[in-house]
Amino acid sequence: MGDCCETEQGVYVDSLLNLEWLRKSLVREEDSIIFSLIERSKYPINSRLYDESAAASLLHLFIKESEAVQAKTGRYTSPEENAFFPASLPPPQHKLVETFGTYQVLHPSGACININSKILNHYLNTLIPLVAAKGDDDRNYAATAASDLACLQALSRRIHYGKFVAEVKFRDSPQDYTPAILAKDREGLMKLLTFESVEEAIKKRVEKKAMVFGQEVELQENGNYYKVKPELVSQLYGEWVIPLTKFVQVEYLLRRLD
Amino acid sequence: MGDCCETEQGVYVDSLLNLEWLRKSLVREEDSIIFSLIERSKYPINSRLYDESAAASLLHLFIKESEAVQAKTGRYTSPEENAFFPASLPPPQHKLVETFGTYQVLHPSGACININSKILNHYLNTLIPLVAAKGDDDRNYAATAASDLACLQALSRRIHYGKFVAEVKFRDSPQDYTPAILAKDREGLMKLLTFESVEEAIKKRVEKKAMVFGQEVELQENGNYYKVKPELVSQLYGEWVIPLTKFVQVEYLLRRLD
Repeated sequence: MGDCCETEQGVYVDSLLNLEWLRKSLVREEDSIIFSLIERSKYPINSRLYDESAAASLLHLFIKESEAVQAKTGRYTSPEENAFFPASLPPPQHKLVETFGTYQVLHPSGACININSKILNHYLNTLIPLVAAKGDDDRNYAATAASDLACLQALSRRIHYGKFVAEVKFRDSPQDYTPAILAKDREGLMKLLTFESVEEAIKKRVEKKAMVFGQEVELQENGNYYKVKPELVSQLYGEWVIPLTKFVQVEYLLRRLD
Repeated sequence: MGDCCETEQGVYVDSLLNLEWLRKSLVREEDSIIFSLIERSKYPINSRLYDESAAASLLHLFIKESEAVQAKTGRYTSPEENAFFPASLPPPQHKLVETFGTYQVLHPSGACININSKILNHYLNTLIPLVAAKGDDDRNYAATAASDLACLQALSRRIHYGKFVAEVKFRDSPQDYTPAILAKDREGLMKLLTFESVEEAIKKRVEKKAMVFGQEVELQENGNYYKVKPELVSQLYGEWVIPLTKFVQVEYLLRRLD
């Protein structure tokens, strides 16, 4: 219960650059991602929600307006949060949050990396058709959009943690990364950041989590039906979440010596 | 995946008055409630979020503005949804949803029953201190508020399903309920709606779900730590969710012959 109750600014900033805290946060975020995908699977695709043929899609408007409400509540003063539509977000607007500054935890030119448009595209085009059943239930567009936003925010947080991971790794051994950064050697950096056995373990763990969290729990034992296919979550991590997190790390490191 | 993909208005309305569909929805809503409580437990209490000493609390503003965004997306045209601050919600505001009418599935004088202020009070005063650890992490007020809203909406949906359950039960055997309704006999109605063995089974099932969904999943088996105490969820259902759902049913039935 409440595994991140830092009370002081200093403690909070320190924890963002503490590898053990980051590891724990990444593992905990797996649960949030899987819960949110299972919740999204309650609704059919509802593809009209994403239709951009006339003007902006209903989802687009929903996310934009929801992010404005969350910005007023101070969400984007946290370096862990990246908006999907960061242009023209309102500032914090309540005495409790309006004095919040923005923490400078990261190297400034890397701090602003935001690959949410990539995440949104991939989510809309690849993930939703795999998670949601075909069909349309027009009464639930708002609930569907809210659950899309929860998925997107959880994925975005996980993937952008790559910035903190890269900063910690760089601080731990700048000599390992500096030559590749100076040579703008993306491939070399990717190699330095790749640990296949760790990635395999993550993929197995999220598959197991999807089996545990997505099962139909009855008082009597029952069959093996899962709300979201466990192998899909493993695939999501293997083909998408892990590569994008590393992409963020590489981009961050390339700017680390600016 | 996608267990509610009705495509036609008639099918959707019918399903709301189908006891098997309702039973499934109530069972599925247990998962949503438990997921949302587990997500809330990521953050400490953050009690300043609820502070009403100056004006409206930050949570109050957050819910009000979020509900306005969701109303524009058509959320409250669904008879399954009840707003926490229903006064002055904007109408649906996108070509996809602005022609939505409101379904008349329920008896009109009972359809507008809304006990969300009771749910909000109980949530703030009783549930949060049991689910969240002590402490404050001011960077996460917006994320905390968003997760409060998810809990509140899931609880509200579950509890207000009582209206549909009451309608179905009344239609099935009006002769059983009519005398008590005419006599305004709350206690008698409560007795007619109480099935202790069913309630015991629900309490056991939600406790089991909280154990399954709230565990720390590791590749190796580990100890018995749960993010939200399973017995707390059973208690929540026994002392609160089930009684409030029955309260909604009684209130609904009392108006059923208006």
